Amino acid sequence: MDYIYKLKLEVRDYECDIEGIVNNSIYLSYLEHAREKFLKSLGYNFFELTKNNIYLVATKIEIEYKKSLMSSDEFFVGLNIKKLSPIRMEFLQDIFINDKIYTSAKIIVAITDKNSKPIKNRDFLNGLFSKIEKKS
Amino acid sequence: MDYIYKLKLEVRDYECDIEGIVNNSIYLSYLEHAREKFLKSLGYNFFELTKNNIYLVATKIEIEYKKSLMSSDEFFVGLNIKKLSPIRMEFLQDIFINDKIYTSAKIIVAITDKNSKPIKNRDFLNGLFSKIEKKS
Amino acid sequence: MDYIYKLKLEVRDYECDIEGIVNNSIYLSYLEHAREKFLKSLGYNFFELTKNNIYLVATKIEIEYKKSLMSSDEFFVGLNIKKLSPIRMEFLQDIFINDKIYTSAKIIVAITDKNSKPIKNRDFLNGLFSKIEKKS
Amino acid sequence: MDYIYKLKLEVRDYECDIEGIVNNSIYLSYLEHAREKFLKSLGYNFFELTKNNIYLVATKIEIEYKKSLMSSDEFFVGLNIKKLSPIRMEFLQDIFINDKIYTSAKIIVAITDKNSKPIKNRDFLNGLFSKIEKKS
Repeated sequence: MDYIYKLKLEVRDYECDIEGIVNNSIYLSYLEHAREKFLKSLGYNFFELTKNNIYLVATKIEIEYKKSLMSSDEFFVGLNIKKLSPIRMEFLQDIFINDKIYTSAKIIVAITDKNSKPIKNRDFLNGLFSKIEKKS
Repeated sequence: MDYIYKLKLEVRDYECDIEGIVNNSIYLSYLEHAREKFLKSLGYNFFELTKNNIYLVATKIEIEYKKSLMSSDEFFVGLNIKKLSPIRMEFLQDIFINDKIYTSAKIIVAITDKNSKPIKNRDFLNGLFSKIEKKS
Repeated sequence: MDYIYKLKLEVRDYECDIEGIVNNSIYLSYLEHAREKFLKSLGYNFFELTKNNIYLVATKIEIEYKKSLMSSDEFFVGLNIKKLSPIRMEFLQDIFINDKIYTSAKIIVAITDKNSKPIKNRDFLNGLFSKIEKKS
Repeated sequence: MDYIYKLKLEVRDYECDIEGIVNNSIYLSYLEHAREKFLKSLGYNFFELTKNNIYLVATKIEIEYKKSLMSSDEFFVGLNIKKLSPIRMEFLQDIFINDKIYTSAKIIVAITDKNSKPIKNRDFLNGLFSKIEKKS
């Protein structure tokens, strides 16, 4: 599959649980980190954005665990994104090793203000998606 | 809403992120802990189960974040469960404060062996669900 | 041993690592949570304090792991505190089960401003320690 | 300062707390990950070792927090090691950015068996330290 952004990561021992596999919640951290790095690759920084009262908040996550990551596995997070509305984006993210999909996820992210109120922000979204088009 | 099991928890400061709210991945930990306590209330222990080659593995999670938990919030995790097949169960779990739903999740859990192979285990499932019926 | 504050906690499965024991870093979270709850019992809230530009920052931690906590263990965190200077306090914290010490720690906490500069704050410290004396 | 092993890492947003800085407990994870990668660079794997009933367990940690890591910081973990006894090693680990030390730690690691009993294991230790000598 094609992705507009890929990040290579590695399982750290402390991320594995009693069963020797990566704990379910850790995958969300991997996906979040990939979104953070993707936005950074376009010049955006979560922390800086909050200073402009732009908060990017996951409102819905669907994640399928197909195969378990284990201690020391090296893997990729692949990412695609589309605009859903002037408020919402959808990230499609896969975790894979050599074309074998381990985890597949769909994350809806909304733009909100400091008080978690969803905010239409066409400027931000248009800026973001024009950068994405230039990149791909 | 009615739940067959409820667990009271409290947000710990170290679970909050830069935005002062609980990080998305932590909710999965709350939900997992509630499932663990629920099974324990019926006499099951994740760790003991693995010694009998019974692994309970989340294969799919859908989670909606409606309202953010913040530092020091006290909240409940409510839980319901249904059998989907001789291999799979579905947990319906809400996080709420005073009837206000903060998070709503559906978790598919499969029975597998040590090598993550899904295993029909009618004995285990029937035992589990007959205990649940007695309880409710 | 006598403590001015004790907190009961329980090991959650997701806090255990491959070896089936609680990961070293998690103990720091337990200790931090106990300090947070202790201060809250005296009317202080970390998050509120930061709004008054009072940051409580651990500058040194010594921790001895004597015995490992395991899945489902119920344990206590006991806490004592003393003033070291107009800037620094020392927390003595033990984790124990039935008088058996599992972990013993000494944490130096400094008062700083937002920019991590240590700040003498006699008002805050005197207020804190007079509340502690009244309590004990 | 000279180290026999250095690892480059980067702060992930989800590792930062309400105050925008890396939570104290996360530093222990960075240090643990560096020890894991160091041992792996010599051909050892924590998980494989446990199958031979060799457990490497931190028994004491002293850590000084001099300067806080923040969102997106890229940093190094430097590591040195010495033998203390046929059972114990000492790791000296620093976290630094451009020669500025952020965190300095001393970790005592013991060799134990599955039941946490300390075990003299001269073969393992001699093997380890002869590999270290060849490397440096």
